[in-house]
Amino acid sequence: MDLKPTKPLSGFIELLPAQQRCFDYCANRMLNTLKICGFNQLDLPAIERAEVLTDKDNWDEIETQMYLFEKGGTKMGLRYDGTVGLSRYVAGHLNDLTFPFRASQFSKRYRGERKQRGRYREFYQMDMDIMGINTLSTNYDAEIISVIQRTLNSVSEFIGENGVHVGSRPFWDAVFDWLNLTPEQKKDIFVLIDKKDAMGDAEFEAGLKDSLNDADKENTIKSVFTDGYELFKNKSEKLDAAIAELTDFMKTLDNMGVKNAQIDLSIARGLAYYTGLVFEFKLLDYPELGTAAGGGRYADLVGKFSTTKIIGVGAAIGFSRIFVALMESGKIDLSQFESSVDVAVLVMGNENLPYAMQILNTLRGEKIPSLAYLDTDKKFKNQIEYADKIGARFAAIIGETETENKVVALKNMTTGNQESLSLADAIKTIKA
Amino acid sequence: MDLKPTKPLSGFIELLPAQQRCFDYCANRMLNTLKICGFNQLDLPAIERAEVLTDKDNWDEIETQMYLFEKGGTKMGLRYDGTVGLSRYVAGHLNDLTFPFRASQFSKRYRGERKQRGRYREFYQMDMDIMGINTLSTNYDAEIISVIQRTLNSVSEFIGENGVHVGSRPFWDAVFDWLNLTPEQKKDIFVLIDKKDAMGDAEFEAGLKDSLNDADKENTIKSVFTDGYELFKNKSEKLDAAIAELTDFMKTLDNMGVKNAQIDLSIARGLAYYTGLVFEFKLLDYPELGTAAGGGRYADLVGKFSTTKIIGVGAAIGFSRIFVALMESGKIDLSQFESSVDVAVLVMGNENLPYAMQILNTLRGEKIPSLAYLDTDKKFKNQIEYADKIGARFAAIIGETETENKVVALKNMTTGNQESLSLADAIKTIKA
Repeated sequence: MDLKPTKPLSGFIELLPAQQRCFDYCANRMLNTLKICGFNQLDLPAIERAEVLTDKDNWDEIETQMYLFEKGGTKMGLRYDGTVGLSRYVAGHLNDLTFPFRASQFSKRYRGERKQRGRYREFYQMDMDIMGINTLSTNYDAEIISVIQRTLNSVSEFIGENGVHVGSRPFWDAVFDWLNLTPEQKKDIFVLIDKKDAMGDAEFEAGLKDSLNDADKENTIKSVFTDGYELFKNKSEKLDAAIAELTDFMKTLDNMGVKNAQIDLSIARGLAYYTGLVFEFKLLDYPELGTAAGGGRYADLVGKFSTTKIIGVGAAIGFSRIFVALMESGKIDLSQFESSVDVAVLVMGNENLPYAMQILNTLRGEKIPSLAYLDTDKKFKNQIEYADKIGARFAAIIGETETENKVVALKNMTTGNQESLSLADAIKTIKA
Repeated sequence: MDLKPTKPLSGFIELLPAQQRCFDYCANRMLNTLKICGFNQLDLPAIERAEVLTDKDNWDEIETQMYLFEKGGTKMGLRYDGTVGLSRYVAGHLNDLTFPFRASQFSKRYRGERKQRGRYREFYQMDMDIMGINTLSTNYDAEIISVIQRTLNSVSEFIGENGVHVGSRPFWDAVFDWLNLTPEQKKDIFVLIDKKDAMGDAEFEAGLKDSLNDADKENTIKSVFTDGYELFKNKSEKLDAAIAELTDFMKTLDNMGVKNAQIDLSIARGLAYYTGLVFEFKLLDYPELGTAAGGGRYADLVGKFSTTKIIGVGAAIGFSRIFVALMESGKIDLSQFESSVDVAVLVMGNENLPYAMQILNTLRGEKIPSLAYLDTDKKFKNQIEYADKIGARFAAIIGETETENKVVALKNMTTGNQESLSLADAIKTIKA
């Protein structure tokens, strides 16, 4: 019989136990931070109806890269982000939720895109969203940024410091209006700005010329990337409003204690959803990772599901993207995650099992991570080798003498020191 | 424009925030118990190659009920249990893992079966498995049962007490051999036993007659369900060995401190995987939920992936099955999970935002779950109503006076009592 493949599908992540412990540790710290910030953790289905997932005004790439299938005559697919399910959920529970409603999600998403470094077909993102009915102060945009920073800082020992770049969709709308661009030009230029980072300057400039064919307008747009908003003051009411919103916002961020925030009008965040301020986080020590988190404001989050107007501000942290990349490149020290237990109970013969199990149950009752080696006919050499290999801090050796005298032979696996102790004293030593 | 549907697909679970908090609380308690028992938590892909998922000697029903699809020319599908992925993973990492290897998983699985009460198309199971190379004492079977009981007991305030029924595949093999059944009869009778609970006695007896057409043999098989193994002692070596294994095992369970264990030879656990002892847990207060957890031993876990012989013993807790059913039927009191926060900071005007944000950041730094109402132009009435609706224990009201005097107007939302306190004193009151 041919053996089946043991590798996961290409683009799917599979961690070793120590890596997984680090991954989970960071996720739990970050999720706990979101809980402290009053977010309601949601766990929505990974499968949605195709009509919920697909959307004409959404990225074309997303649609072609979705995992879509049919079951029982219903077309459905795997979610590619957290926002589409959240929109449906919130629209379906308008009367069950209190607004402004804070939701967080930590879940797997799926994109069938071509495999490239740091991109996966199945990956975790950690989302946070705040949604209001009809109204939502931009203070909430600042709150989301503040919460992301607090969340990333909760694992700074692993990922270092972070900074946030803030852009504005209304600013670009105002620029385009002031330049009298056609709707088609607006869309083309916006797509160009969104992809600017991925192309060289020459390609960007060629794109501008291609669409505008007007040196003045081309230069005006290019000036944003060199001089920011300065040249656009006192040009139009709309521009002044957008600039005022952005500069006020930076003050609010400062008031909220957000560090390393800067205006960066090159931040665009794609064509979908966003209608207001947008932002991206970078990890200062790891610029090669690109965007660690990003988000923004959407004026009408649930319009496809409900006539109630829900304004949202939200963001996603690229959790797998950050942590899998840093682990794979050896940037995270995994030594504290190598072992699953503190104590390995070694049972020298099945006649000692009853007493050894009392020991094990007491250790576990004391919340000391512990296990027993239960192939009790194996030699001491095999058993102690196992305790060593799994990285147990202590071996609790239970033989005839220990059973008779109701003691534990406790071996410190680091020093090699071994003592015969009462169970109570053994627990003290282990906890010390 | 037609609005899109807001309900999830039929058979998919979607919880409200308080339900989700209860669900997560119980999951975390149980996962922590598994950690204390030395299990390595794994998080494997939800999508596997179709050839990994499908298998001729597997349940036919599972195959037809799988979510299978094709992407980029590769046939793949969503996992229906945790064992298939675990087998692949372990076979692919034989040199990275230390055996006996303990793995736990808590993940979503997918089955496209018809919707029925307590059955879902997307559901969580919590698995634990111990795997050895070439050898694995049945002490480990007892350890798995002990760990499941400890795990279920860690949430006994929600699900009550549990009991475990232990069956034996070798016992039935020995019975079938002793009765000289043909291979076809063996398989038929085994399927019949496995489905006995779902059919009436008459249907079961008709099935026996249909397959055996021998009153003596039919009665012999039926006697197991009334008299247990008693009649089968001293009939064949194989029977005696199976009975001895089972009775010794019950002593080991007792030594491990497992309560409410009983022999129950009607436990069959399907045709797939299992080759040794099998077991099922019931919740004593909720017999209507059926099997809360089940598992057993497999002599050759990874045979399809590797020539190395891995013996496994493992089990799955039907996590969604238990908790969603108990929540939906109102059997779990959710009152302790109703609120997401302790403190709502109410900001009376945007001029008070800087001071209010200092308060909020300090509360969060103290790990006090808290949020701020940031539509600062809203009236006090709206803001306090929000604090009440979200179930905050305290409102920290920040107006002009508070900003000037660097104090907090702390309102106890239960008693209605309001005091002007320094931030340090407010924190003491909140934590008291």
